[in-house]
Amino acid sequence: MTSNVARAAGAAVGRGPGRPRNDDLDARIIEATLAIIDADEEVTVSRIVAHCGVSRAALYRRWPSLTALIAAALDVGRTVPPEFPTDGDLRATVFDAMLGDPTSVRASGYSDLRFRQRIRLVMADRSLQKAYWSSHVARRRVPIENLLRAGIKRGILRSDLDLEACLDAVAGAGYYQVVVRGEHIDDPAVHARLRGALEVVWRGMLA
Amino acid sequence: MTSNVARAAGAAVGRGPGRPRNDDLDARIIEATLAIIDADEEVTVSRIVAHCGVSRAALYRRWPSLTALIAAALDVGRTVPPEFPTDGDLRATVFDAMLGDPTSVRASGYSDLRFRQRIRLVMADRSLQKAYWSSHVARRRVPIENLLRAGIKRGILRSDLDLEACLDAVAGAGYYQVVVRGEHIDDPAVHARLRGALEVVWRGMLA
Repeated sequence: MTSNVARAAGAAVGRGPGRPRNDDLDARIIEATLAIIDADEEVTVSRIVAHCGVSRAALYRRWPSLTALIAAALDVGRTVPPEFPTDGDLRATVFDAMLGDPTSVRASGYSDLRFRQRIRLVMADRSLQKAYWSSHVARRRVPIENLLRAGIKRGILRSDLDLEACLDAVAGAGYYQVVVRGEHIDDPAVHARLRGALEVVWRGMLA
Repeated sequence: MTSNVARAAGAAVGRGPGRPRNDDLDARIIEATLAIIDADEEVTVSRIVAHCGVSRAALYRRWPSLTALIAAALDVGRTVPPEFPTDGDLRATVFDAMLGDPTSVRASGYSDLRFRQRIRLVMADRSLQKAYWSSHVARRRVPIENLLRAGIKRGILRSDLDLEACLDAVAGAGYYQVVVRGEHIDDPAVHARLRGALEVVWRGMLA
């Protein structure tokens, strides 16, 4: 968990893998923020400061706004996938990339509870939602977009695809399970349904 | 709005179109519930009673639980579509049914704010979420499922489709716009993206 926290802390300020001093302080701030979120309390700078004993100034030196900090905290346990190989079995790579290992989400510490809290927070605050979208979700989509673009170049996928729409349909089916159906994302029946959704989108993408 | 309220009130207790007495009382309870939701206050039976002056007993005679009442209130302005014609231009009917008129949602009084509140409430309360899913969302999907099933019978769509998964992909793309991207559902760019998602799912469903 701590390495996830540190990674999120680093990502939030755009640091490279060479980790500078004060990493611990970043992690403490992120952990305090998560503790407040998990306790279902309103996240305020005062509360974070009280929790972890850093100064307001130290907090704002690390994150430009409380919104950016909350967005980073909510992303702890999520990672940006590396670029995928584009020259192998495209179908297999796309299915692995988009369905992944359903247990990995939970194993990473990104719990169902945390996910539900994240949705509640972003639905209450559109600026947090937009911040989370652009610094976190959109970033995680890029390697898959590149993979699909390579598929178009190889003539396997249609050249007229609206890739944003294709990704929204597959990712949206996933959100639908938790946000609308109220299911757990690591339920095998849910996983089978998501595979079915990807099957139909995949066929629709084929040249 | 009042007719929407009355319709939701009727739907909640499974009444037919012949409307019995006390419709006004149902509507007053629903309206009080919505006023509390819109004020972002916690919905409690005491608060509803104080708002509209009905007795607890009267409330519980109408809805089996507070959860069922909140679910009904959250559905005000949403309607179950009638069955669709299954013998015409299937593609046109499916596109109309699934994309609809993006302004109709807002025109019906089902505002963006109400939608966001609904998501917050169901993410905080899985039993409310399950109640809302089974009495409202799942019910609204039936006519479209029947339409797709007719398409399979006519040999237009593949017989091996996982229809639940297909609907989840299209509906999920819609939720994704509001829940993840933070967009407004009646934005023309959003509508174009949803059309793109339906295009790819439609092609994937074709026999």
